[in-house]
Amino acid sequence: MLKSINKEQAFTLGVLGGGQLAKMLANSAYAMGLNVAIIENHASSPAGDMTKLDFSKGWEDKEDFDSFIDASDIITLENEFIDPTLLEYIVKKGKKVYPSADTMRLVQDKLIQKQTFQNAGLPVPEFMQIDSIEDGAKFADKYEFPFIMKSRKFGYDGYGNAKIDNLEDLKTDFARFSKDEKRRFLMAERFIDFSKELAVMVARSVSGEIEVYPCVETIQRNHICHSVIAPAEVDAAILKNAQEIAVDAVKAIDGVGVFGVELFLKKDSSLLINEIAPRPHNSGHYTIEACDTSQFENGIRAICNLPLGSSEMRKPAACMVNLLGSRDGIGVPTNIIDMLKNTKAALHLYNKKQCRAGRKMGHITALGNSTEEAYNVAKKGADDFIW
Amino acid sequence: MLKSINKEQAFTLGVLGGGQLAKMLANSAYAMGLNVAIIENHASSPAGDMTKLDFSKGWEDKEDFDSFIDASDIITLENEFIDPTLLEYIVKKGKKVYPSADTMRLVQDKLIQKQTFQNAGLPVPEFMQIDSIEDGAKFADKYEFPFIMKSRKFGYDGYGNAKIDNLEDLKTDFARFSKDEKRRFLMAERFIDFSKELAVMVARSVSGEIEVYPCVETIQRNHICHSVIAPAEVDAAILKNAQEIAVDAVKAIDGVGVFGVELFLKKDSSLLINEIAPRPHNSGHYTIEACDTSQFENGIRAICNLPLGSSEMRKPAACMVNLLGSRDGIGVPTNIIDMLKNTKAALHLYNKKQCRAGRKMGHITALGNSTEEAYNVAKKGADDFIW
Repeated sequence: MLKSINKEQAFTLGVLGGGQLAKMLANSAYAMGLNVAIIENHASSPAGDMTKLDFSKGWEDKEDFDSFIDASDIITLENEFIDPTLLEYIVKKGKKVYPSADTMRLVQDKLIQKQTFQNAGLPVPEFMQIDSIEDGAKFADKYEFPFIMKSRKFGYDGYGNAKIDNLEDLKTDFARFSKDEKRRFLMAERFIDFSKELAVMVARSVSGEIEVYPCVETIQRNHICHSVIAPAEVDAAILKNAQEIAVDAVKAIDGVGVFGVELFLKKDSSLLINEIAPRPHNSGHYTIEACDTSQFENGIRAICNLPLGSSEMRKPAACMVNLLGSRDGIGVPTNIIDMLKNTKAALHLYNKKQCRAGRKMGHITALGNSTEEAYNVAKKGADDFIW
Repeated sequence: MLKSINKEQAFTLGVLGGGQLAKMLANSAYAMGLNVAIIENHASSPAGDMTKLDFSKGWEDKEDFDSFIDASDIITLENEFIDPTLLEYIVKKGKKVYPSADTMRLVQDKLIQKQTFQNAGLPVPEFMQIDSIEDGAKFADKYEFPFIMKSRKFGYDGYGNAKIDNLEDLKTDFARFSKDEKRRFLMAERFIDFSKELAVMVARSVSGEIEVYPCVETIQRNHICHSVIAPAEVDAAILKNAQEIAVDAVKAIDGVGVFGVELFLKKDSSLLINEIAPRPHNSGHYTIEACDTSQFENGIRAICNLPLGSSEMRKPAACMVNLLGSRDGIGVPTNIIDMLKNTKAALHLYNKKQCRAGRKMGHITALGNSTEEAYNVAKKGADDFIW
């Protein structure tokens, strides 16, 4: 159990990617007594800086990729854009990797993802493949403007999404998207006038054991996750329904690892799946402090086929607020003193070398006996922070 | 603030020592966005394995020590046996190190430590310097057998301590201790028939800000910390008294960093200081999960002169149990499955390469709404563990 191939070394978790999710995975792995290998296409990544097993040419460099695979006992990923053939290559080389190539194929293309959920009987917004302006017009005829036009692949944080209000928008945005080599395959999705955006983390192990986290509310600003409130302030029946849908969504893609399921709560209290992230998720960062077992540790346990840890919250409420860059420049905050005076907020900084306006540079989590208490602590911490 | 001397790098925390305390300091530093440098006199140490800045020849190798100092922005330590002249050398090279050489000189020699506390008006067991068997006999005349004979320096986990029941013991143990080059300077201390052993962690920053943790009970087996119950189950007045004494003890040695103060609770409810550890302490491991800010993070904040975080507990009770090796052999546990089925226990493994009977290999922490709840979870986890 967790015995390394090389018995002199600790069992080594390899992570495809070296950003903040890999960094937090690495911290959990270290606490569990594991070693960590990171592959990223540049040096000095947030997670690569944490280990000697730092492969900084990236997976497109065959030699680097081979060395990374050799150094790892088991491999996982921190972003959903990994080419599934790379995962198959890892398996061919005799190493385990989760989520699997098959799961990634069901997730990466948002059209196939939606079809998969629909086929499993799960609620999704109406959608349609769009290959032309005429297709878009047909969708609008059926479901009315506005609708959402989405790149089937490589969309994130609003990149590759557009709200289409009328035929003019459709023409402009279709033309714009068509020019983007990576994002030119499109789909239309019905615009949902939601009352809240919710999210649920689910860990599912190799043997099928499942641990589901509380349903949270995610608050976006400029299409980027700004804050998370755990648990979401909605009826218990909705919380439970969201958890059930999230678990079924992970089963529908035969997911192994940890997954973030984003949902729309409609004004009639029904839920629709927005999308699934096959990795630790910004909406689950609060679990580091707030739950018995973090999303990161349960992700590792899941792929190692270890029993999963409890997702129970330690306090009734938690709030996480992202620290987004407010300027371009070095990745060192200008002032963290005032924030730290807010003694009950837990600060995470990602050690990104460059700050950019809007870039996720860190986050704050506060626990509380009420949502209001947690929110006020976290909000004040974020307000006091200066990059 | 936390800007590295080398602006391309993250601010780097250097730790003298690469064991489990350094490992947990490193994990906290990483979460705070810092980098970590480790110096230890062998490769593959628990903390050294976590960083590229792994200086494995040790501080007795001048070149290695210089490189470690150059790589670090600020330096701390994980054991109390560091030669204070090494700390002065660091300062001479223009780097900050805490605790200071002066603090270490007051702490390392247990005779001087006791005198310092006594001079500060703090309660300590009666003690006396012992340079001969006759000195020991004089102490016994005054305070009766049994008494404790202690090496003034380099004692830990019972090494360098002996209970002296009679003149025969005194002769035998004096002769035995005298042969030990490092441990031959001795003191006598009155034997305390305590009702409980208590401990309090205190963080004190460069600017003198203090954060004191709850008073806990420590339960030893074979002179090694076996488990910790937080808070200790004693009267509120005793808890408060213990915290006050602990804070005064840290002030008495002008301590900067994080300190573990061990106390005896006598049957008449009075308290005596047993000793102080000028570093994170086994009795504070529970703070990782149980408190708003861990002992490790507050230790780092303290030496960086950042505002300290709250020590408030997230749940009413916590229990930590050490995982001690039960055999000699590789440092990989034989079975962690059963332990992890105990889903509410947080597992820490230290990634020591070699297991020895009695060696601290990891620990388990459980939180609960009652001491009993926390204790049962942690105890079961430890019982299920097999090395």
